[in-house]
Amino acid sequence: MDVREYIEANAADFFADLKEWLSIPSISGNPAHAVDVRRSAAWLSGHLRETGFPTVEVWETPGLPAVFAEWPAADPGAPTVLVYGHHDVQPIEPIEEWVTDPFAPIEDGDRLIGRGSSDDKGQVLFHSLGLRAGIAASAATAPPVTIKMLVEGEEESGSPNLPDLLRAHADRLACDVIVVSDTTMWLADVPSMCTGMRGLTEAELALYGPDTDLHSGSFGGAVPNPLHAMASLLAGLHDTDGRVTLPGFYDGVVPLSDEERRLFAKLPFDEGEWLATAGNSRAPHGERGFTTLERVWARPTAEVNGMWGGHTGPGGKTIVPSEAHAKVSFRLVAGQDPAEVQRSFRAYVEANTPPGIRAEVALPSGGFRACFSPIDSAGVRAARRAMERAFGTDVLFTREGGSGPEADLSEILDAPLVFVAVGLDSDRIHAPNEKVEMPLLLKGAEAAAYMWDEFATALR
Amino acid sequence: MDVREYIEANAADFFADLKEWLSIPSISGNPAHAVDVRRSAAWLSGHLRETGFPTVEVWETPGLPAVFAEWPAADPGAPTVLVYGHHDVQPIEPIEEWVTDPFAPIEDGDRLIGRGSSDDKGQVLFHSLGLRAGIAASAATAPPVTIKMLVEGEEESGSPNLPDLLRAHADRLACDVIVVSDTTMWLADVPSMCTGMRGLTEAELALYGPDTDLHSGSFGGAVPNPLHAMASLLAGLHDTDGRVTLPGFYDGVVPLSDEERRLFAKLPFDEGEWLATAGNSRAPHGERGFTTLERVWARPTAEVNGMWGGHTGPGGKTIVPSEAHAKVSFRLVAGQDPAEVQRSFRAYVEANTPPGIRAEVALPSGGFRACFSPIDSAGVRAARRAMERAFGTDVLFTREGGSGPEADLSEILDAPLVFVAVGLDSDRIHAPNEKVEMPLLLKGAEAAAYMWDEFATALR
Ligand SMILES: [Zn+2]
Ligand SMILES: [Zn+2]
Repeated sequence: MDVREYIEANAADFFADLKEWLSIPSISGNPAHAVDVRRSAAWLSGHLRETGFPTVEVWETPGLPAVFAEWPAADPGAPTVLVYGHHDVQPIEPIEEWVTDPFAPIEDGDRLIGRGSSDDKGQVLFHSLGLRAGIAASAATAPPVTIKMLVEGEEESGSPNLPDLLRAHADRLACDVIVVSDTTMWLADVPSMCTGMRGLTEAELALYGPDTDLHSGSFGGAVPNPLHAMASLLAGLHDTDGRVTLPGFYDGVVPLSDEERRLFAKLPFDEGEWLATAGNSRAPHGERGFTTLERVWARPTAEVNGMWGGHTGPGGKTIVPSEAHAKVSFRLVAGQDPAEVQRSFRAYVEANTPPGIRAEVALPSGGFRACFSPIDSAGVRAARRAMERAFGTDVLFTREGGSGPEADLSEILDAPLVFVAVGLDSDRIHAPNEKVEMPLLLKGAEAAAYMWDEFATALR
Repeated sequence: MDVREYIEANAADFFADLKEWLSIPSISGNPAHAVDVRRSAAWLSGHLRETGFPTVEVWETPGLPAVFAEWPAADPGAPTVLVYGHHDVQPIEPIEEWVTDPFAPIEDGDRLIGRGSSDDKGQVLFHSLGLRAGIAASAATAPPVTIKMLVEGEEESGSPNLPDLLRAHADRLACDVIVVSDTTMWLADVPSMCTGMRGLTEAELALYGPDTDLHSGSFGGAVPNPLHAMASLLAGLHDTDGRVTLPGFYDGVVPLSDEERRLFAKLPFDEGEWLATAGNSRAPHGERGFTTLERVWARPTAEVNGMWGGHTGPGGKTIVPSEAHAKVSFRLVAGQDPAEVQRSFRAYVEANTPPGIRAEVALPSGGFRACFSPIDSAGVRAARRAMERAFGTDVLFTREGGSGPEADLSEILDAPLVFVAVGLDSDRIHAPNEKVEMPLLLKGAEAAAYMWDEFATALR
């Protein structure tokens, strides 16, 4: 029985298991559901034991628990792979927009509808099906690589305890590569792998002028107006080419390779459709010399998220306002240090605040780095071969514009990332009526089965 | 009995009359006080009749009434002077900050404390005392010029019915010069005359990007951000010399004469003290090449009064916002057309809004022109001589940064303005504990008495 036959023969059981798991409302963001997140961890533990993992543990945190499992390779010299995913799910609000019960998963043709079906329970579970298929097809009793799984319970709440958990268990989590199955492919018939996610850092800027709002008849034109200073500071963040002007901002940025740009360009992309998804934006806009996909995936940004000051109510009020405020955030790419960007922003503000205005820069948190998975790494090449065997077609590459805890995983465990996932952008994750394409979950299982063999050879 | 002796002899009666008038709470901005504004008009009518005006009329408007009076010169070839003032007063809020009853005027040394004592009842009334003093001193039975008075009842409410009133009675208000007594002098011992007031026009700008706020991870860097566009548009309103960049903005601006700048510079001015009154502003700021006083009095401005958009609440929210808004106003000087400035702003926005952003410019009202009283005009020179005779010292010149209905007066009646007033910036007009310096009101009466003679000669 080959991998594909095994998966077909076991598909019904696989989806029955998945529906059972999806019925547990493991919403990490709602304290009332903490007990359900614990039930979810217990369910997964049982499932992984049944799958054959000799070691399965629930790891407590100050918040909600993660599940760890390990299945050593028969060959002690084989490489080690860590699979990362999460068993918590997003809240279900607005509830009235769900056409089915979010925690009573039902099939609708090829689709399985339910909260967590794509993000991320379905994508965690295809690994156990793939693992069993690979073992069955090879008539072995253990996988060709040591497989570890870490399935956390707080990803949808920002993974607040993950870094500490990773550090505390760094020895047991040691691995040669980290497989993340929590992203999407380009389209059902255009399989792809993610090669990076942008990081983020934020700042809040306050500018203070006169102690009180002044009458512009008496004072206008002779005292500094903090709204003018704010407009100039924010306008000055970009040059006419759409590049960020902060000194050193692009230092160390890992450039897009020609090969990755070439492969991005092969993705079928309709800019008009994309603009429609972008709130019916009327035109693309951004850094000169890059395509829309390159801009959102692989280029760093400065974005003003909010701005306010002076009279904002109805009617006119001819004042020189006392204060101006703005919230700014920076999307980062590989090679950028969030703390360095914050320092550069602070220095920029200090250097460009006019006399008579006092500036305060608040830096709410350190932010997080981008994560990056180069397409020419051994792990990505091996995983891509496995994906191509499963899908029977070329596998392209994408990135994601925002990110979760992946950079922490890679940094703390000092291992490269490989993104293998079969979700779609149309899966409505984080939204009502989340679904997953069931045939794609089976393709994911198949790719996983091949991947262990590919890794056994490529990473040795 | 000369003018000064007459005034001294009648000072007590004058202040008794003024206190009676000040006791009437003629707050035009509060409909509950409409009856008091009418009582105030009736009181003034009676007073002007007692003064000797053969014609005294209450002129109704769709709002609150004005008082008109006329006393023809004996010589039918004598020039005609129209005195403008107002008999309504500002509201008294915050009431708790008044140390006396605002409508029970009391004397405190040289000061008379009460709402309207300086703005504008005290300054209207010194004209009747001056007129009687002049007639008594010359042993005449009529003034040397035809004197008309127009004392409106809605100035503190924006004079909404004044233009129509002026147009309806243009024949009866016809005059060679308009004397406005509703401003201030530089200091009690530095008498001065106002030579202009800035006009105003306003605009509201809305910029629309995506239909909804977008997640900056997914879209940031590839769609236009309306806050970026807003910052650029507002920052671009000024060049590095602090000049307004709107095309044609300075076309036709009447420049400050060297003589007026020389006289401004003679005013004792402590920039540190001025900054303290400007909400403790930390530095002056404005158009290069002009002093602080020139900037607030005689130079046009563009001022951002309010600005808002995106996330303005606590914490961060990494969005590309859907909208950005700003309120902008322009202070204008002689030679600028408010409608033209609005058109130029609209054209500037249209020319500088980036692709993908939709701009809407709302123009709430036409605004109003600056008023201007050139220092070398016959009327100003005559009034200045009268002031110098009364004060026994040089009279300097000031301007005001904001204005009331004066430009309408001059335009509709087609007569030049002359500002003769004895209020002080320290009089706390529009604020709690408004006061007037009683000796200055008597100086105002004396200047008025001399002024009729000066006008009779100079304007013939
Ligand atoms: Zn997820
Ligand atoms: Zn007034």
